[in-house]
Amino acid sequence: MTPRLALVPGEPAGIGPELCVRLAQQPRSDCRLLAFADPDSLHSAAEALGLPLRLLDETTGASAPGDLPVHPVRNVTATRFGHTDPRNARAVIDALTRAADACLRGELDGMVTGPVHKAAINAGGIAYTGTTELLATHAGCDVVMMLANDIVRVALATTHLPLRDVADAITAPALTRVLRITHAALRRDFGIADPVMAVLGLNPHAGEAGHLGHEEIEVIEPVLAALRADGMRLVGPLPADTAFLPSKLTGFDAVVAMYHDQGLPVLKYSGFEHAVNLTLGLPYPRVAVDHGTALELAGKGVADPSSLFAATRVCAELAGRRMRERETGNGE
Amino acid sequence: MTPRLALVPGEPAGIGPELCVRLAQQPRSDCRLLAFADPDSLHSAAEALGLPLRLLDETTGASAPGDLPVHPVRNVTATRFGHTDPRNARAVIDALTRAADACLRGELDGMVTGPVHKAAINAGGIAYTGTTELLATHAGCDVVMMLANDIVRVALATTHLPLRDVADAITAPALTRVLRITHAALRRDFGIADPVMAVLGLNPHAGEAGHLGHEEIEVIEPVLAALRADGMRLVGPLPADTAFLPSKLTGFDAVVAMYHDQGLPVLKYSGFEHAVNLTLGLPYPRVAVDHGTALELAGKGVADPSSLFAATRVCAELAGRRMRERETGNGE
Repeated sequence: MTPRLALVPGEPAGIGPELCVRLAQQPRSDCRLLAFADPDSLHSAAEALGLPLRLLDETTGASAPGDLPVHPVRNVTATRFGHTDPRNARAVIDALTRAADACLRGELDGMVTGPVHKAAINAGGIAYTGTTELLATHAGCDVVMMLANDIVRVALATTHLPLRDVADAITAPALTRVLRITHAALRRDFGIADPVMAVLGLNPHAGEAGHLGHEEIEVIEPVLAALRADGMRLVGPLPADTAFLPSKLTGFDAVVAMYHDQGLPVLKYSGFEHAVNLTLGLPYPRVAVDHGTALELAGKGVADPSSLFAATRVCAELAGRRMRERETGNGE
Repeated sequence: MTPRLALVPGEPAGIGPELCVRLAQQPRSDCRLLAFADPDSLHSAAEALGLPLRLLDETTGASAPGDLPVHPVRNVTATRFGHTDPRNARAVIDALTRAADACLRGELDGMVTGPVHKAAINAGGIAYTGTTELLATHAGCDVVMMLANDIVRVALATTHLPLRDVADAITAPALTRVLRITHAALRRDFGIADPVMAVLGLNPHAGEAGHLGHEEIEVIEPVLAALRADGMRLVGPLPADTAFLPSKLTGFDAVVAMYHDQGLPVLKYSGFEHAVNLTLGLPYPRVAVDHGTALELAGKGVADPSSLFAATRVCAELAGRRMRERETGNGE
């Protein structure tokens, strides 16, 4: 059996719908998709791109390019590419939570999501800081954001925090949680039996033995020591500037960065187009594109679908692995 | 006339001396070198590597591979590769300051330096945080640290600060100084008439319009506006994770990062071997290697000399440009 994945386009005025239409043109054997989306918005995108699109009901399988089963989540206003409308904020969020519900109930095996427009959601009166946070709250669990491409996987110990708040956010319990979740995901989702994780220091040169900050000595090293005693293979705390040298990266299954701008520039430099954003720690695999809504490109047929294609491929792989594991676990 | 450059090997127990010996094997037409070094240490390195070395007096020019004019700065104890000796700290620092004096007096046209061992200098009772800082204090001027390779030039608004102190260090006067020094150096040293500088935000997503921090709005944007009014071409504040996308980098003559680990991982990932460390703002060009003393490799002949070769090439280029400018300025 191939996994069945929810596909959520995100902001209807952005490039999400057209990327989904492009995705629906591809024959695929690794998963079956079920879109949680506004049908009109998908049709508008198909029309704008001049591509075939046949929306099927939830139970019908795709059989030709352009076929896409859909669970309708209707917008309040018609799609105008490039122009967000706060009245559609609720539908954007509903699509995500309904897809999440289906995953949590076990009806679907994973979720692939397009870009959401943070300001449009907030303008619609819904407090929203990000889909990662939304899905974590919805599922009631701690999660870790990981960005990955063909070169490197980067997990973040903190995500969207002002820089001046980062140092205080790196506590022993928080870092322990991040490392445990990342370790479990590398094993379960990526199938790496005994993963090696590089852990960056917080300060330049990883604090240089206390000369450039004390968090490595007081927080990070004790956490690593405790987890190593539990059997985890952890390298670090490493200076961030040299940890990403290509010769070193090959030895790491993931790099755990302490904060956003320490970990992501190399990831994006080394392969932006194929980068995906994973939420680790949920009861189901969730993989998102690694780009924004690109309102200025929407409806023009020029947006690069590589990241959504990669997200779908990766999510299918992760979901497939979990399914096989469940089967093995069930003795089938 | 080719420029005459000071060559300072740095820590005698590290790989600096052997890199200098390797450099002396190369025929070169872009500059003439004068080493400020302990002669015995250079001879030990040459012996360890099995390479010819003939130390000449200061006024004699090199004429064969292995020829190196030297201004002797003698160590207290004999070189033992891999083992620093605090008693030699004074000689390491003296070599740097004597070379700097020669540059300040105009007898030499620039300085190329190998790696210094911070802890060994401090163990020798000399307060030392870095050669950049030492040369700035010695010359009595503000400087900017820039790291550069063939892909990107990264200037740092702050350097070796604990992460928790970074936000408060980004003040309008400090950032203005950094941008002015970097701009002047791109013009004078790199010969770029009207350089374009990308300036990163401090916070993730460059603060996302105040949602993730206020320093962009309160400090960085006003500084950029004021300098743009002075005619500088400044792009930003940009989110650090996407500013380094290869498609964007080609449009920037330099990227000004707010702190160490925001700017350097991509630089080192994209070309560590040929990266060099420049001190901008001194009365003379100073270019250093972008690596440490590598005590564990010293004396084994395996250390990669690429960075010292690149530093010498870059320093010769910068010094040559200043010489030609002086000549033009003098109406010759």
